[in-house]
Amino acid sequence: MKFEVTILGSASATPVYNRNPTAQLLNCNERQYLIDCGEGTQQQLIKFGFKASKIDYIFISHLHGDHFFGLVGLLSSLHLNGRTKPLHLFAPPALKEIIELQFLHSDTRLRYEIDFYPIDATKPEVIFKNNDVTVETIILNHRIPCTGFKFTEKKRLRKLVIEKLEEDAVPVEYYPMLKRSVDVDLPDGRSIKYLDYTTDSATPKVYCYCSDTMYDERYFSQIGGADTLYHEATFLHEMLDRANETHHTTAKQAAEIATKVKAKKLLIGHFSSRYKTLEALLEEAKDGFDATELATEGKTFEI
Amino acid sequence: MKFEVTILGSASATPVYNRNPTAQLLNCNERQYLIDCGEGTQQQLIKFGFKASKIDYIFISHLHGDHFFGLVGLLSSLHLNGRTKPLHLFAPPALKEIIELQFLHSDTRLRYEIDFYPIDATKPEVIFKNNDVTVETIILNHRIPCTGFKFTEKKRLRKLVIEKLEEDAVPVEYYPMLKRSVDVDLPDGRSIKYLDYTTDSATPKVYCYCSDTMYDERYFSQIGGADTLYHEATFLHEMLDRANETHHTTAKQAAEIATKVKAKKLLIGHFSSRYKTLEALLEEAKDGFDATELATEGKTFEI
Repeated sequence: MKFEVTILGSASATPVYNRNPTAQLLNCNERQYLIDCGEGTQQQLIKFGFKASKIDYIFISHLHGDHFFGLVGLLSSLHLNGRTKPLHLFAPPALKEIIELQFLHSDTRLRYEIDFYPIDATKPEVIFKNNDVTVETIILNHRIPCTGFKFTEKKRLRKLVIEKLEEDAVPVEYYPMLKRSVDVDLPDGRSIKYLDYTTDSATPKVYCYCSDTMYDERYFSQIGGADTLYHEATFLHEMLDRANETHHTTAKQAAEIATKVKAKKLLIGHFSSRYKTLEALLEEAKDGFDATELATEGKTFEI
Repeated sequence: MKFEVTILGSASATPVYNRNPTAQLLNCNERQYLIDCGEGTQQQLIKFGFKASKIDYIFISHLHGDHFFGLVGLLSSLHLNGRTKPLHLFAPPALKEIIELQFLHSDTRLRYEIDFYPIDATKPEVIFKNNDVTVETIILNHRIPCTGFKFTEKKRLRKLVIEKLEEDAVPVEYYPMLKRSVDVDLPDGRSIKYLDYTTDSATPKVYCYCSDTMYDERYFSQIGGADTLYHEATFLHEMLDRANETHHTTAKQAAEIATKVKAKKLLIGHFSSRYKTLEALLEEAKDGFDATELATEGKTFEI
């Protein structure tokens, strides 16, 4: 099953020519999930060859503009391009009013429904679940209410050992039960144990997205063991005071967090506009956690 | 005196990869005036080498998102980059609430003041005047209240004929009066006529910006004799029905308008995303009005 994330923006609050504000596109089993939507996200989608119309789920971490100023434009374009299927939006409660006010004054009546889910940023909760993925909020520590998102692949069904099933002439209509870990009593009296005819599927992968936050051990348990951890790393550690003041993280801290929570891979982003190039940030993070990569525009990472 | 406009966006409602939504930067005597502010405008400013911090006046024509979705991001970046001087914003009344709501929920208290001027879209009025330029609204015909803007250079002072003044030993302290078309009686009894010692300055130039509108003769008198007329030309004339339905103009109509109002130059923009290339639109407009140019990203036009 495909489970990968494409970075659409790596900038923080103020823009830089070659970096866009935060947005990521998660592809889980060919369904598209948009995570945050900074200004220009719809242009980034076009640039990297994605169809906005394929996005059915949008998750907004918090109401700082660099994480959502591209949303109303995107919603508007979907409408103008004829969308009719509902769109599911998980976001801080006030975003509903912000969107509605703008559509009111532009006299826009959307042709599709926005199914708005107001996120409670005070406690972690499962906010979405389908056949592919479960999404849970991560309670971050930022200047305004802010949640990250933990995407956990659904555990796949067990894999059939076809050769053995055929050898023992187990009728195909019982295969689905075996895949679901159920033993089968055949009409001919034989008892078929699922453990003998199937193997375990791969362990579900976990992607954790920590948008804007300062270093705070309280959320570490929530992101434990992530296969891929995206964590903001706005500053170099020499700017720690500024990071604390603005409730952001340094590259060194991001690496420390990845180490502590035993992540397999760390992606860093949300870089301050003061950094014209990003090598120093990458180097600082790799010093503490080698499996670090820069989450920059256009890159796709398998989770 | 410099009087020129740079195009930051030429797209209409839905984005195209290489075209941004509407925004223009007018430079009048080295003061910067931003006209409309579609999503991504701050990135366009950076791309084309302009400093957003130099903009003190912003004019928003109407509340369709492709004309203002980049504004809150721009205002926010100015704040984060330390702006303290006031910014003057001329816009439809509801934009104030839209901005304030977003700053409320992002817990942003701007370090600078926004001097908000609510535009009345029912009748033309002079909304701004300084030593360089006068700005008047143009009442357009769109689906929601919409105004264009007419920028008229201030009539310059008369030019001194220095050679003659020196020859006749007119004291320099009287030069300013002569430039302001005032005759001077010198202490030595001579009467100095300003017409003898000065020549007329250049005729003030006029730039008319007609953002979104359908063909409607009622506003033609307002844009009469523009040196440079920017007029939207969303569609080719074969799409006239669609243009009427959506209250937009065709390239052929834009040319007809430029001819009728005796404009010296026509710039067309706000192109529908259906047009991957713009040659056909230019050709159609040039057929009716030869001095037409495509108002596309990055181009600067002297007015």
